Amino acid sequence: MAQRSITSGGPVPAAFIEDLVVASRILAHYGVLDAWGHVSARHPGNSARYLLSRARAPALITAADIMEFDLDSIPVDGQDRRLFLERFIHGEAYRARPDVHAVVHSHSPNVIPFTVTTEPLKAISHIASFLACGCPVFEIADVGLTQGLLVTTKEQGAALAKTLGQNPVALMRGHGVLVVAQDIPRVVHRALYTDINAKQLATALSFGRSVRYVEPREAQDPKRLADAWDVWKVDAMSERLPARSNP
Amino acid sequence: MAQRSITSGGPVPAAFIEDLVVASRILAHYGVLDAWGHVSARHPGNSARYLLSRARAPALITAADIMEFDLDSIPVDGQDRRLFLERFIHGEAYRARPDVHAVVHSHSPNVIPFTVTTEPLKAISHIASFLACGCPVFEIADVGLTQGLLVTTKEQGAALAKTLGQNPVALMRGHGVLVVAQDIPRVVHRALYTDINAKQLATALSFGRSVRYVEPREAQDPKRLADAWDVWKVDAMSERLPARSNP
Amino acid sequence: MAQRSITSGGPVPAAFIEDLVVASRILAHYGVLDAWGHVSARHPGNSARYLLSRARAPALITAADIMEFDLDSIPVDGQDRRLFLERFIHGEAYRARPDVHAVVHSHSPNVIPFTVTTEPLKAISHIASFLACGCPVFEIADVGLTQGLLVTTKEQGAALAKTLGQNPVALMRGHGVLVVAQDIPRVVHRALYTDINAKQLATALSFGRSVRYVEPREAQDPKRLADAWDVWKVDAMSERLPARSNP
Amino acid sequence: MAQRSITSGGPVPAAFIEDLVVASRILAHYGVLDAWGHVSARHPGNSARYLLSRARAPALITAADIMEFDLDSIPVDGQDRRLFLERFIHGEAYRARPDVHAVVHSHSPNVIPFTVTTEPLKAISHIASFLACGCPVFEIADVGLTQGLLVTTKEQGAALAKTLGQNPVALMRGHGVLVVAQDIPRVVHRALYTDINAKQLATALSFGRSVRYVEPREAQDPKRLADAWDVWKVDAMSERLPARSNP
Repeated sequence: MAQRSITSGGPVPAAFIEDLVVASRILAHYGVLDAWGHVSARHPGNSARYLLSRARAPALITAADIMEFDLDSIPVDGQDRRLFLERFIHGEAYRARPDVHAVVHSHSPNVIPFTVTTEPLKAISHIASFLACGCPVFEIADVGLTQGLLVTTKEQGAALAKTLGQNPVALMRGHGVLVVAQDIPRVVHRALYTDINAKQLATALSFGRSVRYVEPREAQDPKRLADAWDVWKVDAMSERLPARSNP
Repeated sequence: MAQRSITSGGPVPAAFIEDLVVASRILAHYGVLDAWGHVSARHPGNSARYLLSRARAPALITAADIMEFDLDSIPVDGQDRRLFLERFIHGEAYRARPDVHAVVHSHSPNVIPFTVTTEPLKAISHIASFLACGCPVFEIADVGLTQGLLVTTKEQGAALAKTLGQNPVALMRGHGVLVVAQDIPRVVHRALYTDINAKQLATALSFGRSVRYVEPREAQDPKRLADAWDVWKVDAMSERLPARSNP
Repeated sequence: MAQRSITSGGPVPAAFIEDLVVASRILAHYGVLDAWGHVSARHPGNSARYLLSRARAPALITAADIMEFDLDSIPVDGQDRRLFLERFIHGEAYRARPDVHAVVHSHSPNVIPFTVTTEPLKAISHIASFLACGCPVFEIADVGLTQGLLVTTKEQGAALAKTLGQNPVALMRGHGVLVVAQDIPRVVHRALYTDINAKQLATALSFGRSVRYVEPREAQDPKRLADAWDVWKVDAMSERLPARSNP
Repeated sequence: MAQRSITSGGPVPAAFIEDLVVASRILAHYGVLDAWGHVSARHPGNSARYLLSRARAPALITAADIMEFDLDSIPVDGQDRRLFLERFIHGEAYRARPDVHAVVHSHSPNVIPFTVTTEPLKAISHIASFLACGCPVFEIADVGLTQGLLVTTKEQGAALAKTLGQNPVALMRGHGVLVVAQDIPRVVHRALYTDINAKQLATALSFGRSVRYVEPREAQDPKRLADAWDVWKVDAMSERLPARSNP
């Protein structure tokens, strides 16, 4: 990788880094993140930088793994560490969406089925009402073939961000999901309930009756997200080592 | 919140409070309660008061979190604590149903699909035979739009209680479920088996054959509920910290 | 209960009792037994007696809970303990089937859907090939109405045993399952894989294509059951306290 | 078993044996392997030998259980240990496929439904893109009836290897799956994601819409498999004793 000299956005509070680590652990604990996938946050002191782990399974990352990148997804200090090939998903989402301060890319298991058919993924539960407007589906073949369906360049990342538009969630055909939010707890909430809502919707569809989706005018983000964060954190961090259920 | 001076219904035995805490932990342990949702009990010494946790994730509550409310859902001693916005579900259920001494409101994951289609949720198993008469579905839009589909006023709570009628369970469209019973163990049993029966019924429906529901005249509440409570309590409380499966 | 004087079938080896306890714990661990349900074994020294726990959640039983019954399901020494109301399922199965030495009655969660439609439960996997001939379904209403669909008399137990015939498994409409075998490990294997096969068959049926069932002439009980027992026992007994997944 | 004198392929590094043990534990931890099933590896120093546990539940094996076999599946040193009846699956796969260095045979629970209908199991997710070309289905009845559908002879093993052809995965009707790869981590990845992809595909099919499968030209094996191995190993080995979810 061509290494440019990138200046740091400045020191980041330890509590902020800790939240980013916890976010990764929570989503691994609940099975939204498998051995791949990643959570990032925009640098709290410099909107042109973001924070993301070195390449490592999300259940195992610690504060020491967090690195700083510019929006071209070049590391401030590479330290010869391996980087996520798909970090451009994050950089381009931050570039395209100034309102976004946290990003998740996952292979959300219950969402995958919705990425490969025309059945729309929309909210059926008020906790997932951020999905009320539906989720655009990103077709990577439209921006040139990539073996493995991976987003490994700025151009692909920008195309995905364009598909995302002003939505909180975009599906990636045959691959997974991009989730964005204004802060770390909210991106965790969205990533988690996108998966849960997908499973519940699949069941509702199986009844063969018309489904009443949450309407956009009924949508509202949940209150008391700090309370939810508390219990998610306890669940994820109380284990000495992550023990997740069968993915 | 306008604070009136509310008198207490009197002291509550510690074992009763403990049962209420355990109920919350059990339903969190088995995934019926997520980071939101709540369990309450009518004050054992004063039918015009009920007991409910301050706003906190149900897996984390302890005896110290339990507060006392009147049927208008005003706290006896607010202590500047945050309160559940939806506590009116409880207050109005106790007002409308003198026979009810315990209430659960949850986002029961397997029940959500039945709240958004016309497919009825009825008992297919004798352990869930309290569902033999079916579950009315509460449509909050019928009592005026609330963003987030939340029940946050006395009027909405009363409308929900009216929909509930004399049933043990009411579904809340795009939101969750209201479960009532004559005591704490029974409301836990009902909340748990409403979820389990919902999952089993979805599978039975998938066969595309007619389903033989439990008939009302066949219905009977399970015996030995104390034995069930014993094992549920062990499961929920033996963990230092709650560890639940993927919601 | 009218107490007759019943003689004991004689002492039972501790290892045999231990196997019976472990069987109960295994089936609770894997979610086949919920807070109710029971496992019994015919007395190894007297074919007119059987061993069954006092009324208690199966995940919690220990050797001290095991009691001895005659085939009328009257305890040798009641000790004023509460007894399972449905113990007649066991007594009558032993009476009708001299080849049977172990019995499970459960509310096997994945089997319930097959008890309430005409979709047959048959083997699709060689490990469940004991189901190759299908499972008769017991309709309790045919022998008179019992509230709760429970089998609480000798007459009902005998009718269930008659429906079972020479099969290893009978379904009980809206209730659960009766599983019998020649020994304890095998009844555990059958109870476990009846549940697993039911879940897999429901998925296979969802494809809307014809299903190739295991043919009776292809059926064979699994070898190396002792190896399976070893790992099931480790799984079930290594926990200080039972921790089961969401039922 | 007729015992021939088989020479050893030479000493095997302890780390290699450890990887084979870990592979078995990982697939048991995630529920791909039940109490039966097995993982093997070709001898790193002699392509005419392979390494496989003595007959034992895969969650319980340790380095001391690993034995050496020739491609006729005769042990170098039998030690009077019980052997897997189906070890011929491994021997014949190594014989037919010089490129293969690791083999899994499992009763992968989510794959079983695809073995008994004509619904094809193909990749819908890029992580499972090794399935892009589909999976041949082995019909054991075509090579003579075997009670129990087991592969217990060289001839049956060779027929299975012939059905496998140059594919990474073959389904075995009413039985399970054969997975092969060039090394141990990759065979674990394939066995795990064959199961996960099967579950996701069943859901996608339930929508009743056409499914967009991953095309062969889009397929690519995942990068960073060592990172995945790290977390799988932690998950599987951090438990004192294996605790798996309900199979």
